[in-house]
Amino acid sequence: MRADSSTAIHFLLASRRCEVNNLRHLLKNGELVGKVSQLIHTLQCERGASNLYLCSTGPAFADELARRVEEADIAQTPVLDSLARLEQTTAALPQSSRLFSGVASVVYALAMLPALRRQIRDRALPQPAMTAFYNDIIRHLLALVSEVTDTAAEPAVARALIAMLSFMRGKEFAGQERAAGAAAFTAGHFDDGVRQQLVGLIHSQEQCFERFVDFADEESAQRWLNQKADSGFERLRRIACTRTEAGSAPQEEGLSWYTLASRRLDGMKQIEDGLARTLMARCQGSIDAAERACDDQQADIETLMSRRGEPAPDYAVFVAGSEGGGLAEGWLSGDGLRPQLGRSLLGLIQQQDRRLQSLDQELSALRVTLGERKQIERAKGLLMQHRGLSEEEAYTALRRLAMSQNKKLIDIAAAMLTIADVLANHP
Amino acid sequence: MRADSSTAIHFLLASRRCEVNNLRHLLKNGELVGKVSQLIHTLQCERGASNLYLCSTGPAFADELARRVEEADIAQTPVLDSLARLEQTTAALPQSSRLFSGVASVVYALAMLPALRRQIRDRALPQPAMTAFYNDIIRHLLALVSEVTDTAAEPAVARALIAMLSFMRGKEFAGQERAAGAAAFTAGHFDDGVRQQLVGLIHSQEQCFERFVDFADEESAQRWLNQKADSGFERLRRIACTRTEAGSAPQEEGLSWYTLASRRLDGMKQIEDGLARTLMARCQGSIDAAERACDDQQADIETLMSRRGEPAPDYAVFVAGSEGGGLAEGWLSGDGLRPQLGRSLLGLIQQQDRRLQSLDQELSALRVTLGERKQIERAKGLLMQHRGLSEEEAYTALRRLAMSQNKKLIDIAAAMLTIADVLANHP
Repeated sequence: MRADSSTAIHFLLASRRCEVNNLRHLLKNGELVGKVSQLIHTLQCERGASNLYLCSTGPAFADELARRVEEADIAQTPVLDSLARLEQTTAALPQSSRLFSGVASVVYALAMLPALRRQIRDRALPQPAMTAFYNDIIRHLLALVSEVTDTAAEPAVARALIAMLSFMRGKEFAGQERAAGAAAFTAGHFDDGVRQQLVGLIHSQEQCFERFVDFADEESAQRWLNQKADSGFERLRRIACTRTEAGSAPQEEGLSWYTLASRRLDGMKQIEDGLARTLMARCQGSIDAAERACDDQQADIETLMSRRGEPAPDYAVFVAGSEGGGLAEGWLSGDGLRPQLGRSLLGLIQQQDRRLQSLDQELSALRVTLGERKQIERAKGLLMQHRGLSEEEAYTALRRLAMSQNKKLIDIAAAMLTIADVLANHP
Repeated sequence: MRADSSTAIHFLLASRRCEVNNLRHLLKNGELVGKVSQLIHTLQCERGASNLYLCSTGPAFADELARRVEEADIAQTPVLDSLARLEQTTAALPQSSRLFSGVASVVYALAMLPALRRQIRDRALPQPAMTAFYNDIIRHLLALVSEVTDTAAEPAVARALIAMLSFMRGKEFAGQERAAGAAAFTAGHFDDGVRQQLVGLIHSQEQCFERFVDFADEESAQRWLNQKADSGFERLRRIACTRTEAGSAPQEEGLSWYTLASRRLDGMKQIEDGLARTLMARCQGSIDAAERACDDQQADIETLMSRRGEPAPDYAVFVAGSEGGGLAEGWLSGDGLRPQLGRSLLGLIQQQDRRLQSLDQELSALRVTLGERKQIERAKGLLMQHRGLSEEEAYTALRRLAMSQNKKLIDIAAAMLTIADVLANHP
């Protein structure tokens, strides 16, 4: 390889091509996220149906449960297929080690589903354990989406992914609320534990949705804000969070809670589908833009080089980066480029450089936000694993710790993760 | 693809293999850094010789300059060759777009070298412009090293790279000090500008070397601290920073400054070579460790699966992540694994997950450090490009701004970069 303007041009074009490839890769990831969102939704429905089935006596809800199981099985296949494809395309990327490790957890959890379902049908599993298993599978699926979000190297797409991930997390807390409420209503009594759990789940939802609104596109955010208020469901929420004695008709109340909560979740799913479409549109948009830019650059350079051969008695160029008054006298004869050509090539290089830098600037800002979120998730996971807490119990524990020490939640999480290995080795 | 333990194992192994591949890729990058360090050193020598040549009259130093040019040409080839190889291996990586754009700048700058040298031989270029061109080429080479450092996905290697990069930056400031001092001594007078420049360069050196000591291995740090003090050179520094009137024998003083400064730089080069060796050793060490871990994992899993077929009347496993007291009752029959086997597979998955998480934890901490450094470098580059300042003038400007507003340097740099596009469009 020689150090001449042709080689410089070669790498300039390579840099652009790289961007296009990354965006194509991002598009594949976006597709995966859409399929995961679908699978999670069906698992949430299955969890809700399982709750009604276990909490009620007799064959009631058995058919609904069977239907939900079928839907979840159907939704599982496309996810597994894209994961298989993903492995082919991303094995070379540094971040893939974490992605694949996450996939292993997901697959392992999904592998347990059939057994879980058997024991549910046989009513061989207590309702809390059953719920915990579904929560766990979904948590692993969400962790996968978070890994994908983490590696998005294009700001607009990254924001769309953060919005989608936050919404999915909020929706999952809503799903857990549906399950907990359905169980309590059907059982007919709400103890302190259940009420605290519900309050915690409502709080967690609000946080996720605030975050979603911060990152979502105008339209989706507006759709959510319009849909949010559902007086009927809010009324049942108040009952659930305040009632102490058993209701008059537990079965009916349980069912109407389940129905309203399910309508709410279905509404969320519609917004989520909209988010998935936005995500895909942004990916495709960025790809088209990048491809156009790639072609334009190619064209500019061809014009540049076509004039390369012309006789140029005393041509000269700047050395890259030395522009500006201070070096006005800094002329140099180049390697066969006229001054204006040399400067335009230099201009192209600097332009690309500046553009990538400001992209990187935007991304690192987003990564800080993401990083904090990820640390909190991990700290939660740690508590769940080693103290056997549920997700919102773990979250509450972290929040209490933060308040009692008057620290930020992220600081508590970071502290917890720095001692993670100790916890791991002495569970 | 089916959701069973074999698939989970498949991705668990894929995750490990990924790590090994990344480390191999990192090794290639490390080799590049070593070659760049060599090229920079020869360019620094050439810059120094050019200074003596331009500042002295007559043919003095012409032979030395010719020899230096030859050495720089020799050092250039291996860098260009690894860059060519790098393009083959890293085109798929997201960060490569920035890397390649950096390569384009480097190649463009190197392409100007022959012309630069012609004009120096003909004494057709003023000394400051000449120096600025060399500084610029080296700045682009250092930016390349910084990109490589940025993408190191293994903490131990990343730290070695940060140490090496910081040292290389410090050494370059030392090289600029040699050039400025040689020019001033030979010219026989030091005006305020030169003195301020020298003070700024000394300050910048100290900052880089402090940073180096923070990240370097014990031995290299110690070697540096031992070598640092050189009374002879310090004496000349004091003269340079205080003297106002011309010296008695400018040529001799210029030469002795140049000689002492060169000895200092050669000493630095030796330490830098040591750092390059440490870097390679760490890469190789991590590769070996990762490969061993890969094999061990494979072995564990084979044992696991070999016992898979055994009759297991009522085997059961946990769902991943649901361990711990809270779910002690959470047993499930798995997909053909005995309880202990299921748990050991789950253990392997969780172990990998935890390990990758704590690696990521360490890395994001390092990235914060790196990110701030990178922002400051970029802000400097911006000022150099649009105000035509020299590197340490730009740095001084940033520092002044920070002090006057009582803000951190990084905040000033970040603010400057957020308005970069404005500056870019209205140079």
